[in-house]
Amino acid sequence: MRYIQKRLRLPAVAEGFHLITDLLLSELPELEAMRVGTASFFIQHTSASLFLTENADPTVRRDFQAYFQRLAPDNAPYFQHTLEGPDDMTAHLKAAMLGNSVTVPIANGGLALGTWQGLCLGEHRRHGGRRWVVVTLLGE
Amino acid sequence: MRYIQKRLRLPAVAEGFHLITDLLLSELPELEAMRVGTASFFIQHTSASLFLTENADPTVRRDFQAYFQRLAPDNAPYFQHTLEGPDDMTAHLKAAMLGNSVTVPIANGGLALGTWQGLCLGEHRRHGGRRWVVVTLLGE
Amino acid sequence: MRYIQKRLRLPAVAEGFHLITDLLLSELPELEAMRVGTASFFIQHTSASLFLTENADPTVRRDFQAYFQRLAPDNAPYFQHTLEGPDDMTAHLKAAMLGNSVTVPIANGGLALGTWQGLCLGEHRRHGGRRWVVVTLLGE
Repeated sequence: MRYIQKRLRLPAVAEGFHLITDLLLSELPELEAMRVGTASFFIQHTSASLFLTENADPTVRRDFQAYFQRLAPDNAPYFQHTLEGPDDMTAHLKAAMLGNSVTVPIANGGLALGTWQGLCLGEHRRHGGRRWVVVTLLGE
Repeated sequence: MRYIQKRLRLPAVAEGFHLITDLLLSELPELEAMRVGTASFFIQHTSASLFLTENADPTVRRDFQAYFQRLAPDNAPYFQHTLEGPDDMTAHLKAAMLGNSVTVPIANGGLALGTWQGLCLGEHRRHGGRRWVVVTLLGE
Repeated sequence: MRYIQKRLRLPAVAEGFHLITDLLLSELPELEAMRVGTASFFIQHTSASLFLTENADPTVRRDFQAYFQRLAPDNAPYFQHTLEGPDDMTAHLKAAMLGNSVTVPIANGGLALGTWQGLCLGEHRRHGGRRWVVVTLLGE
């Protein structure tokens, strides 16, 4: 059994939701040699999220953005944490609700994702910049 | 230290929230031999959720259903992902908020759940069918 | 590779959101000897949450409390699970949305948290009492 851990820097993306499965897998050729295990993906930020959702229709990600903008509207009058801009507090809320880490089973040299599952980056800031993800593969 | 991984098919259930702790444990007799470790439960879908909640009073699950129907109402006029029915986009949203994987500590031959914790399947489609769960036990 | 598992009892806190990174780390001196691995933090309750959020400005936690009180208001007229008080059902909802477990990578003798990430206890009951957290370190 062995560990492989990598810290990956993502490209900067626009506010919204972005599939990053292929991007992450391209950095993890070691997966192919693993028969069984777990892969933990962990984003080192509190204003962006990392979670699993539908991987086919772009309107799903567009609707996520429309929904969460309504669920946690910027400029709510009762927010006190406003110094870093109107999108900062809501970014923390969205990130906490959607989560910042995903543990996916490894099976037969790959991630055991369902047919329609993709790893999704939720960028909740207008100018979030490049984000860091730590991937820890554990298996044999 | 060793891995045990199983892919389990759940029975089809009605839309709503269902406790599945006993069902999952009945498929995992290997747990008894493990002194310490972790158990990862992972549902391979993006319109059903797997999370922990109260395991005793059925009205808790009924209230979850009532709450999330209001939090993410079907037929919101701004949804674009509507081709697969009015419950599809909201199913993705609920699944993302509630999560699709749970990592539970293993201690002394069982899951180290709190007294009132149960593994809960959130079926967010009206006709979701049978769902797949991958369980990965790692321990010694 | 080895496991270290501990069950920790947290001090009772007021309803709201509380950083507990330092408190947890003070109980985990074994981390220092680990080069690589994962740390799973698991709260054994369904009316309190354990998740990651911003670790610097106290108004962030204050705004979390203000936001979630509005998102899941006590005394919603359609709740049926009301026997344990008006804050019980909403505590289950908040805990399910924010989550009860966090898996953090271990790197170079510590948690590989981002600069602004802290482990946060969401106490969703008015009198939640002392909560139990199970920590499982796995690494080498």
